[in-house]
Amino acid sequence: MALTAEIIGVGTELLLGNTVNTDARDISEGLSALGINVFFHTVVGDNPARLRLAVEIAKRRADILITTGGLGPTCDDLTKETVAECFGKKLVFNEEEAENIRSYFEKSLRRTNITENNMRQAMLPEGCTVFRNHWGTAPGCAFRGDGKHVIMLPGPPRECVSMFNNCAVPYLRELSDSEIISHSIRIFGMGESVVEDKLHDMMLALENPTLAPYAKEGEVMLRVTAKAASVEEAEALMTPVLEKVRETIGDFIYAIDEENLESVVLRILREKNLTVAVAESCTGGLLQKRITDIPGASKSFSGGVVTYADKTKTLLLGVPAELIEKEGVVSSAVAKAMAEGVKEKIGADFGIGITGVAGPDTDERGNEIGTVFVSLSAFDCTYCRELHLGADRNRIRIMAVNHALDMLRRYLTGLRME
Amino acid sequence: MALTAEIIGVGTELLLGNTVNTDARDISEGLSALGINVFFHTVVGDNPARLRLAVEIAKRRADILITTGGLGPTCDDLTKETVAECFGKKLVFNEEEAENIRSYFEKSLRRTNITENNMRQAMLPEGCTVFRNHWGTAPGCAFRGDGKHVIMLPGPPRECVSMFNNCAVPYLRELSDSEIISHSIRIFGMGESVVEDKLHDMMLALENPTLAPYAKEGEVMLRVTAKAASVEEAEALMTPVLEKVRETIGDFIYAIDEENLESVVLRILREKNLTVAVAESCTGGLLQKRITDIPGASKSFSGGVVTYADKTKTLLLGVPAELIEKEGVVSSAVAKAMAEGVKEKIGADFGIGITGVAGPDTDERGNEIGTVFVSLSAFDCTYCRELHLGADRNRIRIMAVNHALDMLRRYLTGLRME
Repeated sequence: MALTAEIIGVGTELLLGNTVNTDARDISEGLSALGINVFFHTVVGDNPARLRLAVEIAKRRADILITTGGLGPTCDDLTKETVAECFGKKLVFNEEEAENIRSYFEKSLRRTNITENNMRQAMLPEGCTVFRNHWGTAPGCAFRGDGKHVIMLPGPPRECVSMFNNCAVPYLRELSDSEIISHSIRIFGMGESVVEDKLHDMMLALENPTLAPYAKEGEVMLRVTAKAASVEEAEALMTPVLEKVRETIGDFIYAIDEENLESVVLRILREKNLTVAVAESCTGGLLQKRITDIPGASKSFSGGVVTYADKTKTLLLGVPAELIEKEGVVSSAVAKAMAEGVKEKIGADFGIGITGVAGPDTDERGNEIGTVFVSLSAFDCTYCRELHLGADRNRIRIMAVNHALDMLRRYLTGLRME
Repeated sequence: MALTAEIIGVGTELLLGNTVNTDARDISEGLSALGINVFFHTVVGDNPARLRLAVEIAKRRADILITTGGLGPTCDDLTKETVAECFGKKLVFNEEEAENIRSYFEKSLRRTNITENNMRQAMLPEGCTVFRNHWGTAPGCAFRGDGKHVIMLPGPPRECVSMFNNCAVPYLRELSDSEIISHSIRIFGMGESVVEDKLHDMMLALENPTLAPYAKEGEVMLRVTAKAASVEEAEALMTPVLEKVRETIGDFIYAIDEENLESVVLRILREKNLTVAVAESCTGGLLQKRITDIPGASKSFSGGVVTYADKTKTLLLGVPAELIEKEGVVSSAVAKAMAEGVKEKIGADFGIGITGVAGPDTDERGNEIGTVFVSLSAFDCTYCRELHLGADRNRIRIMAVNHALDMLRRYLTGLRME
């Protein structure tokens, strides 16, 4: 029987709509990879009575309670006091953590006037496992009480997620005498419903490992998770499943475990010592933004242009005005001329050209919103995909960029280009 | 006594960490603007028994229950059935909504094979107020039961937030015999703590209207909210507060109610019939992406380049290689040459140039991470800001783009340029 967890987010800023609860999302994803079921999230303000209520309710319906937020130095930060009280625990002063907080203030903030309030952060529930905060000051902790496991994490997302991954995950793994390992299978170019159709029977039949789909923006992610006495055994359990998925989904799988299309493409370009240049119209810089989101992109990304207006396509890329006039700016011919133009102008190994109608209006030639041409100029030949991407401006832009990256990935790995 | 609300998010994808609960954030922000207190958020999976439990708990502690998600056509979508049952209501078939769903399928999706499941979406609680879904298919609704107000909204963020703003907000406003009106004051260039310091006493002293800060990425937002018998009276209550804030914060205020810096800048450019071209280095296309996020941007945005590699600055913008050699690529001189180069090449009224070190490594001349030069080439003169933006890659890029937009805003509205 799998353990169940409830995540309690503490912070009035969440209830005011000031911040979004990414902590609950990130922790849930991590718990799911550990095979722990999450049945409820709760969010409550910096109010001891209402936090107490939330803890009492969670105690009745979960094995593991994880709180985020309210560990800081201000008088609003009441999570430790309140939660410890709910489990009949006293808070005790932890000299080691106090020393760590002092040294953080002196070294990182160059401050010596540490207030009483800051030292309150060193008060921790008696007998707890301390989670040292390497990403901020407030330590987190874990303890057992009333037959439950209680974990308290800081609220700021970077601190919360780092502490969860580095401290809470090993702690939770200890609760189980088995290892739980998972892999992410990333898929582009095949819709979620098709993927699910193809793997439906397999997903239903599998118990260990499990196979579950996650919808991501414009792509599909499958997670395979195995439980075994050792990492090796868990991996061995997953091997046939991964093989079967590969066989079924084929080269629509663009990565196992790697983050996203842009990181895969940039890694391959770097390995092959090749460069790409980009010319975007309707995607307005999104492709270049996503490429340069990856640290170290400058090694493989030479640069690019955003030719939003027609005349800049001619001015910057040398796309003949007559071609635009004859074929229309949203056309395969112009996409190809953009890809070839930017490749040549910048002197890169590959050129990408994107032109289309992202809305809100159709273009003057009556091309439907969502019509996009994506072109890749490679060594031997210039390829082009004609896309019809529906009516949502944001989705059109994301999908067009995904297709551009996917074309380059396919070329670089020697796959069919259509 | 203010009304209280609880938001119940329904969807297993939230508990698996697949998606983040932006609906709860956006609805909370809207409720806060209406003067309705939110004390709890709950998230529960697509499971009738656990949803029933969440509704029963919420009934005990809130006046208004708002659910998001689970209104769709699949067998997982059980919110309406379950919530109606909790309040002893029957679901009845709504012919008008059925007709609307049929016409959506035929017109937007060009499908005539509407399944039974799709028509299930037209089943609604007896006696409810129907919220027509103009952004998807599943209608939402509101009803009274057991002394509570219940509102059900679809889960996909665009549908949820559009329906909340267009249908639920007017409905909730009716519950009160007074009008609650608010304005957002958007500030760039003054830090949150400085703003709070300057307005601290005022914020504490005010009761109606209230004045509260919201931290946004790289900027500050203040919301002033007034309650009165009429809209006019509410506006009159806010006028002196808005004036006082204007007096205190001055021209760091870039908008009242308008969305963001890019929408303000594009509106002014459009009004003045002027155009801008952009040359980005370390921001890698983010400025152009944000400009083209705004529908209709093509009227004022001529295009731009991402000159990530040094040589492309020379190739595409005509920045002299000797200048780059002499001054370094991260320098005021190069930023200015980029702004002037792109303005001239593309033939726009304004040119923006951005060059800097976004990390993770410092550059070869030893410029610290976060050093960025942002330049605006205007009619008479080329301006440049030298920025030191800390070490977070993502924040550096966002702030550099904000500064570029702010410089153009200042120039266009005749303000001091430093």
